Amino acid sequence: MTDPRYTALVQSLPATVPFVGPETQERAMGAPFVARLGANESVFGPSPKALDAMAKAASGAWMYGDPEVHDLRHALAAHHAVAPENTIVGEGIDGLLGYLVRLLVGPGDAVVTSDGAYPTFNYHVAGFGGTLHKVPYRDDHEDPDALIAKAREVDAKLIYFANPDNPMGSWHSAAVVQRMIDALPEGCVLALDEAYADTAPSDAIPPLDVTHPRVIRFRTFSKAYGLAGMRVGYGIAAAEFITSFAKIRNHFGMGRVAQAAALAALEDQDHLANTLALIGAGRDHIAEIALLNGLTPLPSATNFVTIDCRKDGDYARSVVAKLIAQGIFVRMPFIAPQDRCIRVSCAPAVALDAFAAALPRAL
Amino acid sequence: MTDPRYTALVQSLPATVPFVGPETQERAMGAPFVARLGANESVFGPSPKALDAMAKAASGAWMYGDPEVHDLRHALAAHHAVAPENTIVGEGIDGLLGYLVRLLVGPGDAVVTSDGAYPTFNYHVAGFGGTLHKVPYRDDHEDPDALIAKAREVDAKLIYFANPDNPMGSWHSAAVVQRMIDALPEGCVLALDEAYADTAPSDAIPPLDVTHPRVIRFRTFSKAYGLAGMRVGYGIAAAEFITSFAKIRNHFGMGRVAQAAALAALEDQDHLANTLALIGAGRDHIAEIALLNGLTPLPSATNFVTIDCRKDGDYARSVVAKLIAQGIFVRMPFIAPQDRCIRVSCAPAVALDAFAAALPRAL
Repeated sequence: MTDPRYTALVQSLPATVPFVGPETQERAMGAPFVARLGANESVFGPSPKALDAMAKAASGAWMYGDPEVHDLRHALAAHHAVAPENTIVGEGIDGLLGYLVRLLVGPGDAVVTSDGAYPTFNYHVAGFGGTLHKVPYRDDHEDPDALIAKAREVDAKLIYFANPDNPMGSWHSAAVVQRMIDALPEGCVLALDEAYADTAPSDAIPPLDVTHPRVIRFRTFSKAYGLAGMRVGYGIAAAEFITSFAKIRNHFGMGRVAQAAALAALEDQDHLANTLALIGAGRDHIAEIALLNGLTPLPSATNFVTIDCRKDGDYARSVVAKLIAQGIFVRMPFIAPQDRCIRVSCAPAVALDAFAAALPRAL
Repeated sequence: MTDPRYTALVQSLPATVPFVGPETQERAMGAPFVARLGANESVFGPSPKALDAMAKAASGAWMYGDPEVHDLRHALAAHHAVAPENTIVGEGIDGLLGYLVRLLVGPGDAVVTSDGAYPTFNYHVAGFGGTLHKVPYRDDHEDPDALIAKAREVDAKLIYFANPDNPMGSWHSAAVVQRMIDALPEGCVLALDEAYADTAPSDAIPPLDVTHPRVIRFRTFSKAYGLAGMRVGYGIAAAEFITSFAKIRNHFGMGRVAQAAALAALEDQDHLANTLALIGAGRDHIAEIALLNGLTPLPSATNFVTIDCRKDGDYARSVVAKLIAQGIFVRMPFIAPQDRCIRVSCAPAVALDAFAAALPRAL
């Protein structure tokens, strides 16, 4: 019997996983990780009020979630001083990036990103047949000028730019980002991934401006809010841009308990502030461990610290492998010269102490 | 400033919602529904063990869900006597249908469904530029012979067929479905939506056969298992077919709490059996209410009963509107002649009593 007739595009794609999950590694090792420091999750956990809200919502789990995500979108709008029509909630930023790429990118369309930036974005672009143009990092920072110049050169429909950046933890000032927005070529959309906005210095995030027709800002409950396992990301953009997602999104994709969890997390800004303080302490702790081992911690505006191991990619890969073998889940940048580094999520002292104990044996 | 450069396909699409959520109607009315009987959710609720599992998993909600959905897929495989490689778990059947269409359907590709069948499938086909060919229902049943004949005629890449059917509640025997599978044209995929398999007579569901390269069976935790709000559907097919989803799916789309809830629900087959008994009683109760009001309940293999109001679509629409105005959420088929009916979900007596009280005033 014949196979399914996949589209030509699908036939050209590999079966890929942008990231191997730590659970896969745990199953291979036959033991759980001692410290889970590789996915930039919030080891400090979500707000107890979010947990309460989830418990309360659970008894209503037989009901589909509101496809308009009304309550959460209204709360987000109030929180960010925009209108609900400027917000879209989706299945994590990953899900929203998929929708965004689908809206804009067809076979051969040009898209620009940084070489070594978020692989899941690249996965979506490949998945819709776009042509990715990558510009190098400059001094461990994404390079706004180079991104804009490349977008002009290739007539890009879409630029991906993360500020703060993952995997390097670096950031640009609001002024630099605003200059990038102002320089955006006509017809080009800027996907500004601000997953780490909450952990960034306040002068790193330009004011939201929903009058711009081609800038969409992405935020998430997966990082500082500690709800990665509920899959709630959101976008903020011009109302007309937001409306376009209604043409293609999975309207009933946002579950009821996930919506309730995110709403309660948003309402507990005290917990967020507390988490941010813990993240700050965690950064200092990781930096201290790095220095004690003769490594160089890079400045971080995120909930992780990227550590320069001061040798090449093969060396850093061996460090990661030896940490993992000791039950310490960490990851590292994929692309040279950033792949001389490893990346460690902020966490309570007990987890970082386990990292500190394992690191010397990995070097 | 210029707008985003959407793809030509996206520009051609309307901003659509396949279904308006009951929450939208509640906000418009300014009051919650008294009885929520319109979305074929399980008003009987999920297994208490699923609720326990959710409560337990909630404290780990800071962690992304396993992107391989290992534990749930292994449990599903054991439950259905297939291999884990024959299973895919996704964000509800809605999400999986979107992936399936994306794998197969490009602009102009022919797809076949029944006129009046699941609108979300049609939404996905339109969203990827496919050309939908619809065949009429026959005596309130989807028509397997007509679907196959049309697929041959238009060289369809994909057929959608639901057994049991939504919105009519009707079903075909396993023998008829198997004959349809056997008659499937080369190069054509059959999407067999079995969301209501759990509530169907045992002789309505043909045995799973994962050796067929072009049949994918969809099941869900949203109906009999009572977890619509957690968004967990799954597909069963040949391993090679399943692997193709890894080219495009949102690998981290399945949340941690959702996976835990579905796993526990699957393990509590006693609760499922109990729910099925309650659904059976609910069907009888709805049928009785219909007959008392001079209406005709149609036979049902689902967790809802479709009631023939014995007049035209306008009449049935007015009945639905008058029920909604009384706080009773119901829906109805969209397409004539099925739109002479209304559709009522099985529920505990208190909810059906509210329906019974409201119905005479709606007729």
